[in-house]
Amino acid sequence: MSHKNKINPDLVKERSKCSFNTLELTHLIDGGVEKTNERKSRESFFLDDPSLRSKVPLEYLSHKEKYEEAVRQSCLLFRKVQELQNEGKGGMDNFREILGGQLGSAILKDGNPLTLHYVMFIPTLMGQGTVEQQAEWIQKAWSCDIIGTYAQTELGHGTFIRGLETIATYDTKTEEFVLNSPTITSYKWWPGGLGHSANYAVVVAQLHTLGKNHGIHPFIVQLRDEETHVPLPGIKIGEIGCKLGMNSTNNGYLGFENVRIPRTNMLMKNSRVLPDGTYVQSPSNKLTYGTMIFVRVVLVQDAATYLKKACTIATRYSAVRHQSQIKPDEPEPQIMDYLTQQNKLFPQLSACFSFQYAATWLWDTYNNVTGELETGQLENLPELHAAACVLKAVATADAARGIEILRLSCGGHGYMTASNLPSTYGLVTAMCTYEGENTVLLLQTARFLIKCWQNPQSLQSLPSCKYLLHALNNKLPFQKSVNWIISALQKTAAGKIELANRRINERVRKGMAYEDAWNNTSIELVQAAELHGRTLIVEIYLATIQKLKQRVSTELMTVLDQLLQLYAVDTILRCTGDILKFTEVQGRDIDALQTWLEELLTLIRPNAVGIVDSFDFRDEVLASALGSYDGNVYERLLEEAQKSPLNAEPVNKSFKEYLKPFMKAQL
Amino acid sequence: MSHKNKINPDLVKERSKCSFNTLELTHLIDGGVEKTNERKSRESFFLDDPSLRSKVPLEYLSHKEKYEEAVRQSCLLFRKVQELQNEGKGGMDNFREILGGQLGSAILKDGNPLTLHYVMFIPTLMGQGTVEQQAEWIQKAWSCDIIGTYAQTELGHGTFIRGLETIATYDTKTEEFVLNSPTITSYKWWPGGLGHSANYAVVVAQLHTLGKNHGIHPFIVQLRDEETHVPLPGIKIGEIGCKLGMNSTNNGYLGFENVRIPRTNMLMKNSRVLPDGTYVQSPSNKLTYGTMIFVRVVLVQDAATYLKKACTIATRYSAVRHQSQIKPDEPEPQIMDYLTQQNKLFPQLSACFSFQYAATWLWDTYNNVTGELETGQLENLPELHAAACVLKAVATADAARGIEILRLSCGGHGYMTASNLPSTYGLVTAMCTYEGENTVLLLQTARFLIKCWQNPQSLQSLPSCKYLLHALNNKLPFQKSVNWIISALQKTAAGKIELANRRINERVRKGMAYEDAWNNTSIELVQAAELHGRTLIVEIYLATIQKLKQRVSTELMTVLDQLLQLYAVDTILRCTGDILKFTEVQGRDIDALQTWLEELLTLIRPNAVGIVDSFDFRDEVLASALGSYDGNVYERLLEEAQKSPLNAEPVNKSFKEYLKPFMKAQL
Repeated sequence: MSHKNKINPDLVKERSKCSFNTLELTHLIDGGVEKTNERKSRESFFLDDPSLRSKVPLEYLSHKEKYEEAVRQSCLLFRKVQELQNEGKGGMDNFREILGGQLGSAILKDGNPLTLHYVMFIPTLMGQGTVEQQAEWIQKAWSCDIIGTYAQTELGHGTFIRGLETIATYDTKTEEFVLNSPTITSYKWWPGGLGHSANYAVVVAQLHTLGKNHGIHPFIVQLRDEETHVPLPGIKIGEIGCKLGMNSTNNGYLGFENVRIPRTNMLMKNSRVLPDGTYVQSPSNKLTYGTMIFVRVVLVQDAATYLKKACTIATRYSAVRHQSQIKPDEPEPQIMDYLTQQNKLFPQLSACFSFQYAATWLWDTYNNVTGELETGQLENLPELHAAACVLKAVATADAARGIEILRLSCGGHGYMTASNLPSTYGLVTAMCTYEGENTVLLLQTARFLIKCWQNPQSLQSLPSCKYLLHALNNKLPFQKSVNWIISALQKTAAGKIELANRRINERVRKGMAYEDAWNNTSIELVQAAELHGRTLIVEIYLATIQKLKQRVSTELMTVLDQLLQLYAVDTILRCTGDILKFTEVQGRDIDALQTWLEELLTLIRPNAVGIVDSFDFRDEVLASALGSYDGNVYERLLEEAQKSPLNAEPVNKSFKEYLKPFMKAQL
Repeated sequence: MSHKNKINPDLVKERSKCSFNTLELTHLIDGGVEKTNERKSRESFFLDDPSLRSKVPLEYLSHKEKYEEAVRQSCLLFRKVQELQNEGKGGMDNFREILGGQLGSAILKDGNPLTLHYVMFIPTLMGQGTVEQQAEWIQKAWSCDIIGTYAQTELGHGTFIRGLETIATYDTKTEEFVLNSPTITSYKWWPGGLGHSANYAVVVAQLHTLGKNHGIHPFIVQLRDEETHVPLPGIKIGEIGCKLGMNSTNNGYLGFENVRIPRTNMLMKNSRVLPDGTYVQSPSNKLTYGTMIFVRVVLVQDAATYLKKACTIATRYSAVRHQSQIKPDEPEPQIMDYLTQQNKLFPQLSACFSFQYAATWLWDTYNNVTGELETGQLENLPELHAAACVLKAVATADAARGIEILRLSCGGHGYMTASNLPSTYGLVTAMCTYEGENTVLLLQTARFLIKCWQNPQSLQSLPSCKYLLHALNNKLPFQKSVNWIISALQKTAAGKIELANRRINERVRKGMAYEDAWNNTSIELVQAAELHGRTLIVEIYLATIQKLKQRVSTELMTVLDQLLQLYAVDTILRCTGDILKFTEVQGRDIDALQTWLEELLTLIRPNAVGIVDSFDFRDEVLASALGSYDGNVYERLLEEAQKSPLNAEPVNKSFKEYLKPFMKAQL
């Protein structure tokens, strides 16, 4: 395959035009030269191992074969992780990367059936088990003597977990809990690895003891025999079937019929049930908040990673693809020279940085606040919660939308599995629903914002909301600056929150119950929360870039600043209706913003390939015929097609069986 | 399966609340009682035939098995179509429905490998063949002695067909054409059925004769032996691999190495090559326009059909699903009671009607204009072309977006293949790219609009653009009426076209070439064309409803009018930035529009299930556990999961092979 040694001349040309040192940006993104080297050596450790690769591309396998191949790969993968650990090279830290969008999705392209063991089962044992429970379970789980999952969601209840129906009734006589699924809707549904992989689960169920329901609590339940893997009596279990994506995660269902577990299998770090059935309540419900927010940090980061992958693929393809004519009698230009194409690509490119920075900010805030929690200080938790909700909702929704724009920007070839864009979308659009459905999360942030608005004295101490105090009074003569954009967005967000609050009050005044007034205003509440989130992201982006100024070269800073400006301009141009309504911005200012956008696209154009090169994805991670470093798009597409088992024989058996008899039949 | 006899009580309640006769709406949509009966009897003829059904749901099969099953089904399907024809029950007409979104996708859920034989191969023979060629080929094709496809798109060229690279060189000595693929990018890529199904193709290639290139022309090429199906010498052929959707269409690639065909295999109705190699040009290029526009009519209609399916699924699910609480201590409401959910569902519901009416209008216009063409009158062709481009682009993009909104509105369950929403999206998002990529189409409409703007005297005779003459001078004090919305949209569209034109001129004045100025203004040109298209759709919708007023009951008219209003309000609220900029509309008018939207959602709420019931999709057509008529969502999800081959055995072999050794290994 000779083409693999030569780089497509269009990419050579693009790379020679780049005005900054791509390696500097790579190091900046990784967090320093050493981190880059660590990442690269970890990537080599896993990706250079041929046993981890699949012989046939997954998409050609049957659903069952896909699962079997995924189990093979994930056992090998985690054995390698254990090797690393035994050599003292990092513990849990490895898992983040190995299960995430960078490395994890390069090996198990359509999901990993053992992920939840590491991501949910072990952390839940650690977070919610007593010291004795940890002693009993964690070593077994850590060494994979048992494989667990986390069974919370049910057929009838997802985001609203208080509504879960599985029941764990305490039996004082035997000192056991009896688990039951009283309805079809109470079947557990969705947990990864639950179908055929895990033999244990943490099950979330309504705790009944001494005739009273104490709400949902976590229980350790054995599902399958440790030797034979056969489901235990009373356990009705299987996988839920095919999905838009993640078809190797082995999502399962689970029903209980009088399944008995020892009292000590209830995770009792917080609340407890004593042998006589007495319920002892948790000191604070907020203690379990932490993990939920942590997962949202991860999601914002993953949204950035997947968007970066899609940007790399679409940008390189747009440099290599030639199409149509700008001027008659001139050669077909690279499609990246069309302004409409630039407008599809580059705003997504800037969003990669914005979500990355938002994730870092959220992570820092999370660490500060959990530090405070340990000293008993709870007051910053609501703001953190509101920020985590809105950042998760905006980042996942925008990343999914962005990936689809990028996929469509690759025309027909973007529709091919070999582009890897369809499955990237499949992974990211799922994030809009799990770990809190986006509309529900936006309404939670809205609830916080309305509360703030109604208690302005609280605002002074809230960094992400302080602007609400004064924004409405700001005068905003147009300036071509990101600071101006932030002020305009803040004034608009404040205006939308004020309006939503006013609408609720009007409805209440007319005699509506507050809750109904809230529901009737919810479209505007969602929009207000969304705009608040976008404003926050631009603010964080600007603050991050300002902090970087001392650390990076002028050449790189110019590019980072252009991307920041583009993100800000694109954000404000996406809500001109609100801007014109809630601020004194004029039509001619919008024209100026549009011109600014066009200038920025032109400025970023020569560096676009350099920027995505800096993301430094190995070809195995991109897994895309359109996005590889050498840009040999068409050779790779043809090569990929040869891997189809249908192409292994010139005539498929269906010709003889069906087609020929049909064609030869006399009418 | 007892649940199949009982209707979910939530749906019973919804149906009892419905304020109009759903049958009346069904008849209206079908075009009368008789048409409804015809449709239903055709549906029975195909869907009640158990041999047409698959034993295992397609999604569980391997890629190869999916293809083999599709060939089985499509041979049976077309044999049944031939039966109907032999009984004199319709000819080509049957194919529209049998291959379309209503019936076709109910049988071959992931595409049909023989579609292009009927949709492109036969029509091209008919449209571009001489009388002699038709005599030679059509009977063979019609009786399926040969199966053809249409090979135009190449690896390197899609929408820009002038750039195609396949060459057909005329050899005067042998009176043959010699076909060659001079580059990798010249390989044919994408044609449906080309991989392993068709044995003939119409191939579009650059015609070279007597040393001169005469541009692209169609040729009939035999690909495979009629008896053995083995590819003929010089034919490099196979399938292109997996895609986001339509994995049973057997899209193929095709390369030529000195493939010789007789001179008479060039389709010569328009241009000809004489035996001595002389090229005789076509009298008019515009004659081939017709088919292209016809296909776009079909796409607008299909966009409406698929959107209706998705609406039916999401609306019924939203009536059955209960979640969370509006008020504490009250039972969990149907999720359709949340205003945010209504705002996801009902605008899509109104869009179904708008696209349906737009398709009908385009079809009528198409027939008028092709009628004129036959009398040599060409002047209305550009307007028809511009309208077809923009309606195809807006309808397919909005339908795809709408289906994703609906899918996400079903939460996690919408992500399941069993919801049928993922594959519905897969089919519709493809339409955004094929038959003219949407951005390219919008720019074609923009070119027409700018030409009109520069020649205002031409506007008087253009029904769809006449508004441009006066719209900018209109005064628009807010009124709560669809007419007002249309005027506001028209003024805004005119403003955007004027601005884009001004920007081009400014750039030219600064010394830019017109083509570069065009490219630099293209973001705004695309937006202007899009708004023009949306305005046209609202106009057509209003005109259609006004014509219906005499024919339908007051009860039904009330509902149709609410849907029209909702479509209009939703359309204008999606572009408030432009409205505020280009008209004298004020912020308070936007508030009034928002209130109007909220009122309409509340008004439509009680009839939502009734409206989707009127679409009258059989459960087999919906093919969705979430959308069936009886609303037994959870029972069906569990039942569907049982069909997974993974669930056929309690322990998968991967346990013994990989998982157990991994779990038992000593670290």
